[in-house]
Amino acid sequence: MKPYNFKKFVALALIVLVAVLILPSTSYAGPDPTGPATGNLTTLKDTAKSGPITLNELADAVGHNRIAINFVWVLIAGFLVMFMQAGFAAVETGFTRAKNVAHTMGMNFLVYALGVIGFWICGFAFMFGGVGALAALGGTPGLTNEVTITLFGKVFGIIGNTGYFLNPSVYDVGVFSLFLFQMVFMDTTATIPTGSMAERWKFTTFIPYALFISMFVYPIYGNWVWGAGWLSGLGANFGLGHGHVDFAGSSVVHLVGGVAALAGAIVIGPRLGKYNKDGSVNVIPGHNIPMAIIGTFILAFGWFGFNAGSTLAGVDLRISVAAVNTMLASAAGAISATLYMMWKFKKPDPSMMANGMLAGLVAITAPCAFIPAWAAVLIGAVAGILVIIAVFFIDQKLKIDDPVGAIAVHGVNGLWGIIALGLFADGSYGDGWNGVPGTVKGLFYGDPGQLYAQLVGGITCIVFVFGAMFTFFKLQDKIFGIRVKAEDEMDGLDMPEMGVIGYDNASGPEMR
Amino acid sequence: MKPYNFKKFVALALIVLVAVLILPSTSYAGPDPTGPATGNLTTLKDTAKSGPITLNELADAVGHNRIAINFVWVLIAGFLVMFMQAGFAAVETGFTRAKNVAHTMGMNFLVYALGVIGFWICGFAFMFGGVGALAALGGTPGLTNEVTITLFGKVFGIIGNTGYFLNPSVYDVGVFSLFLFQMVFMDTTATIPTGSMAERWKFTTFIPYALFISMFVYPIYGNWVWGAGWLSGLGANFGLGHGHVDFAGSSVVHLVGGVAALAGAIVIGPRLGKYNKDGSVNVIPGHNIPMAIIGTFILAFGWFGFNAGSTLAGVDLRISVAAVNTMLASAAGAISATLYMMWKFKKPDPSMMANGMLAGLVAITAPCAFIPAWAAVLIGAVAGILVIIAVFFIDQKLKIDDPVGAIAVHGVNGLWGIIALGLFADGSYGDGWNGVPGTVKGLFYGDPGQLYAQLVGGITCIVFVFGAMFTFFKLQDKIFGIRVKAEDEMDGLDMPEMGVIGYDNASGPEMR
Amino acid sequence: MKPYNFKKFVALALIVLVAVLILPSTSYAGPDPTGPATGNLTTLKDTAKSGPITLNELADAVGHNRIAINFVWVLIAGFLVMFMQAGFAAVETGFTRAKNVAHTMGMNFLVYALGVIGFWICGFAFMFGGVGALAALGGTPGLTNEVTITLFGKVFGIIGNTGYFLNPSVYDVGVFSLFLFQMVFMDTTATIPTGSMAERWKFTTFIPYALFISMFVYPIYGNWVWGAGWLSGLGANFGLGHGHVDFAGSSVVHLVGGVAALAGAIVIGPRLGKYNKDGSVNVIPGHNIPMAIIGTFILAFGWFGFNAGSTLAGVDLRISVAAVNTMLASAAGAISATLYMMWKFKKPDPSMMANGMLAGLVAITAPCAFIPAWAAVLIGAVAGILVIIAVFFIDQKLKIDDPVGAIAVHGVNGLWGIIALGLFADGSYGDGWNGVPGTVKGLFYGDPGQLYAQLVGGITCIVFVFGAMFTFFKLQDKIFGIRVKAEDEMDGLDMPEMGVIGYDNASGPEMR
Repeated sequence: MKPYNFKKFVALALIVLVAVLILPSTSYAGPDPTGPATGNLTTLKDTAKSGPITLNELADAVGHNRIAINFVWVLIAGFLVMFMQAGFAAVETGFTRAKNVAHTMGMNFLVYALGVIGFWICGFAFMFGGVGALAALGGTPGLTNEVTITLFGKVFGIIGNTGYFLNPSVYDVGVFSLFLFQMVFMDTTATIPTGSMAERWKFTTFIPYALFISMFVYPIYGNWVWGAGWLSGLGANFGLGHGHVDFAGSSVVHLVGGVAALAGAIVIGPRLGKYNKDGSVNVIPGHNIPMAIIGTFILAFGWFGFNAGSTLAGVDLRISVAAVNTMLASAAGAISATLYMMWKFKKPDPSMMANGMLAGLVAITAPCAFIPAWAAVLIGAVAGILVIIAVFFIDQKLKIDDPVGAIAVHGVNGLWGIIALGLFADGSYGDGWNGVPGTVKGLFYGDPGQLYAQLVGGITCIVFVFGAMFTFFKLQDKIFGIRVKAEDEMDGLDMPEMGVIGYDNASGPEMR
Repeated sequence: MKPYNFKKFVALALIVLVAVLILPSTSYAGPDPTGPATGNLTTLKDTAKSGPITLNELADAVGHNRIAINFVWVLIAGFLVMFMQAGFAAVETGFTRAKNVAHTMGMNFLVYALGVIGFWICGFAFMFGGVGALAALGGTPGLTNEVTITLFGKVFGIIGNTGYFLNPSVYDVGVFSLFLFQMVFMDTTATIPTGSMAERWKFTTFIPYALFISMFVYPIYGNWVWGAGWLSGLGANFGLGHGHVDFAGSSVVHLVGGVAALAGAIVIGPRLGKYNKDGSVNVIPGHNIPMAIIGTFILAFGWFGFNAGSTLAGVDLRISVAAVNTMLASAAGAISATLYMMWKFKKPDPSMMANGMLAGLVAITAPCAFIPAWAAVLIGAVAGILVIIAVFFIDQKLKIDDPVGAIAVHGVNGLWGIIALGLFADGSYGDGWNGVPGTVKGLFYGDPGQLYAQLVGGITCIVFVFGAMFTFFKLQDKIFGIRVKAEDEMDGLDMPEMGVIGYDNASGPEMR
Repeated sequence: MKPYNFKKFVALALIVLVAVLILPSTSYAGPDPTGPATGNLTTLKDTAKSGPITLNELADAVGHNRIAINFVWVLIAGFLVMFMQAGFAAVETGFTRAKNVAHTMGMNFLVYALGVIGFWICGFAFMFGGVGALAALGGTPGLTNEVTITLFGKVFGIIGNTGYFLNPSVYDVGVFSLFLFQMVFMDTTATIPTGSMAERWKFTTFIPYALFISMFVYPIYGNWVWGAGWLSGLGANFGLGHGHVDFAGSSVVHLVGGVAALAGAIVIGPRLGKYNKDGSVNVIPGHNIPMAIIGTFILAFGWFGFNAGSTLAGVDLRISVAAVNTMLASAAGAISATLYMMWKFKKPDPSMMANGMLAGLVAITAPCAFIPAWAAVLIGAVAGILVIIAVFFIDQKLKIDDPVGAIAVHGVNGLWGIIALGLFADGSYGDGWNGVPGTVKGLFYGDPGQLYAQLVGGITCIVFVFGAMFTFFKLQDKIFGIRVKAEDEMDGLDMPEMGVIGYDNASGPEMR
């Protein structure tokens, strides 16, 4: 075998060169390919309108372009966020055991579908039926029915009340854009507890959970922050900064998910064999690091849509700042986690490297558009260390078994994210946010009220979500039992719960 | 080991805070970061044009922006569709056996490359050489040579006849955009039979198949529906609604692929060991559920580009309706399939969950832009059940071995998709479609003619594609034999067909 | 079991139909869903501005839309390029052994994070501190401090000198967009040597490498070509065409990475067991072909962002030509590699098929926007054969052990790519490129000077990068030793280097 036969190669090259010289002169006829055809620009001159065009007609066309840019941006960003479901599925499955892969994958798969339907039925209506952020998309509001109560002379938005089933009254392209983008955010929340409760959750009781969180818990808290609810009014009503500000969901998405994951992990209890009677702790390693790392990259990829897309407008050029800060924090989180692991344990541990990046991403989600680059690096670096400390604290001190670290990643760092906004927002963005004049500033830039608003939002989230989800899981457990049989847990859940084996290695060549 | 050492953490936090307070005042000089730098908006004022600008110049700039929005939208949507190739590869490989992974992956890989070249040679010219949908992109038509025949005084478009090799006469940015977007659609079709014929197809006869379908079969049927061909003229010529309407390809892409998959599966015959002599059927489970689920998510992700991108225009704001309906139908399909499996067999079966979602996606592809949200849910829910019934019917009654369910997913639900458009199109979109005035309405909204046009298109597809592909496969089989040696099929195709082992587990740590 | 029970199906269908007929009339009230609601177009008329609008105000809005289109395009393209990191991780891990997966994945993961931080610290400032391509994004230049030397009366740009840490002086949305897009390009380069040095690189010495290349080597060469440096001035200064032209990085990204990969592979030496004492060569096959093929698709997907995004402007409609040529070359490379393997070895070998596609992609990266479609096919086809010849030559003649073929893919074909531009650029694009009037033309279209400029750029790259990286690796090796212990290499690097096992198959059901 001589594949490096240069004579053959030279012969081949000659044939290619001859072909090159003949091809243009024979195969092709038509306009001179060397002409200045940088596009069909001359023909475009007539596309706006042929004949005389008025200023108002032109203004219409410009406005339409503006809306189209926003739609294109928001929809593509939403697609990227949707793809994060694949990332969650891969990370959670990679970090758990091979005997449960079909079950872990199955939950991550179906939570997306259940979430879509739950959010369509009433979740979207509860969350954005009030006012929504629809104005940013440039369309008609349409969603304007917020249920409010009045206390101490102040109006508090509690829940939205229009838009159920995307019915004809909201059959509008702007509303549909908003629905798509918000749906995928909700599903991110819904999929977080599938990590902390993995390897022992009964599939039939998982299904009602997915509907409950997508129809009620997420939308209600979401309404308070993003849907004209009372937390967004903390600024206008009580003078606390701009009210609770969460650009892309450190609290609305991640803290809600992390707290739900905590409630679920407590109720369902640790996996068999996790904790010994003498109080010592066993490590149950994941089965597939490559799957988890690829999943982490998918999440980091989709997160650009998550954060930068949250302007809801491509014409808001702040998108680049949000994207770059997201990138910087993710990197800083991965690096600080790696160095911390190497310092403590001499080995980097790819699962902690991945969780460090995810922690950085969660933490930057709230502040990404409001802060300078150095603060993004700092927030991410803190997140990367915080997540490791939290993982060990939850695992070893609290003795709560969270197979993938979901509580530490999404809960702890979600909280850190909204606090970070309250510290580092530099006043370069957010003029008029939540109806409060002026830009958003954190403690270090002169507004302690903003930090208070962040803390009120965070504490509210923890109290409300933990209360709702713990009650839900407890009730469900009492009535149906949310945990699989011990025997199935030992054997692996794939066959008893899902009816298939996840990996059929016996079909491989080495096992014939 | 005390990773939860709080003293250390507090010390760290203090260092961080000190750094925070020092950093801004020392490392950075320049403009006040608390200033209102929401972007360089003031500098943008001059970018349109410095000096006085005329209304016509401005109209040119607006028109150019409009085209650019469409290009950006169509190209990114096309990239997403291209990525679906990875999804098909993962789904098909996950649902088949470990001993054939390099072969199944290899086919899914090369079909993309072969399709690109086949479509470049003549497929694109045959399909869009007539008129194409190029106007939607806002550029010059360029492609205007449709071969027609006249029968009963009516003109029937048969095939396009310009644009071969993207030669200089169509060296235009608009044509190139259309080529990219349409190419990836074609490749979706071409990759479908690699599923139904998996685990037994000779690689050397697979190659001519890929060229045949990309150069001839797909483009010809595609021309009839999307390239100014006769099926698109059923409305203008015979008063059947707006002619055969297929927004994003339930018939053009999926039914063509599904019917080709059927023809191929019949000719190549079932896998060894699939059917017993007594007529009983063996289940041959896939080897890797996680791979298949990740693949399904990739497909669902790319499908947003597939469906919403099919406006060919970002300025057509209907993109959001297409995207949301796509999401709703995919979710409804996954859920109905899951519930149906749990009802029939007590276990959800992730492979059926995945096929349910794919069935919903296939079915919504034709009607996605024309229907309200509730209809999308309904169409998806029907698809999710239909696919399971079809899988079992094909497998057990017809005794056609389709390892991944490609015929049921793409064929049966492709047909359901075009019928669904004929039932549920609500008249809110499609004014002037295929040259027929008024919007597109299905049977339930008053236009039975539209349903007839859908059925004519579907039946034409089945007859033409089955005829062409069955003949092709039969001839190929007679002359070369399209099936691998029985011995290779038993051993696995990776080494004999591809020259490598797909999984080399022996290189793992547990096997040293 | 009778899942094909048609009575049940008909009953179901009837229920569905009844539901369909009832649903619209009961559940929904509001505007007529059959109305012409193609969007809220009428309401958009007022979005540009209510009240009379002046021509200048409108021009501002048009300019803002133009910038927004560019931002949306560049950011999304950048996200796609970032996702290529997942592709590299999968390809490199799939092509290496199962015992090292956590290590290979870990390097590919952390190189992204380290690169982000290194580029943020000073890489971006060195590369684009001069002038950058920022004007294309429509924003303020901002980056205007190029260090130059004057020789023979000519000014040579050497390195940029502003923009460190994205400090307040460059706190601008345009600069941030450019940073994101350029960062992901740099990280592509940085990840290439993790392939050629896989399975034996000490993790602690890998970390400084990642910082060194991202902070110094890549940015300096990049400055010369893209940042107003001297190679871009070869045209204006010495009359060599338009200076060294590299549209998306065949030299800046891939040749730099390939040469660094070569230097690293030489210094670190071949894997144990690769070469026998008698001079014969052992093949060490990869462990997971599906992972590598999926990774290749991810790369091909992201590459559309890489190449088409390199206009830095969505309003530059040449994006479609760049994208289509990228697609054509990737396909031609995959096919020519497949056919060449089948001709030489009777088997296609999926790893060579994948490398063929990647080679086509690397080669088209420089010329993609400047050439006609047939040239893209030709360039890709040559690349697909070239990569195989190079792989065998490097492996068997030079006896350099490159586990994934990184040197052949990125180095050899990076060089071929810039030469190809110098041959085939057809003069239809690039007017005024690098300050030289007229369009870019290669040798076959009349400008031999362009080919010289390409060769000067290529040779400079090889000399500079090889010198810098070889010195770096040698010094590092002398001081710290860059190679793992032989024992660890035999056992697999996952546990000794990373602290985890990559695949824990023992947790699978078959091994309980």
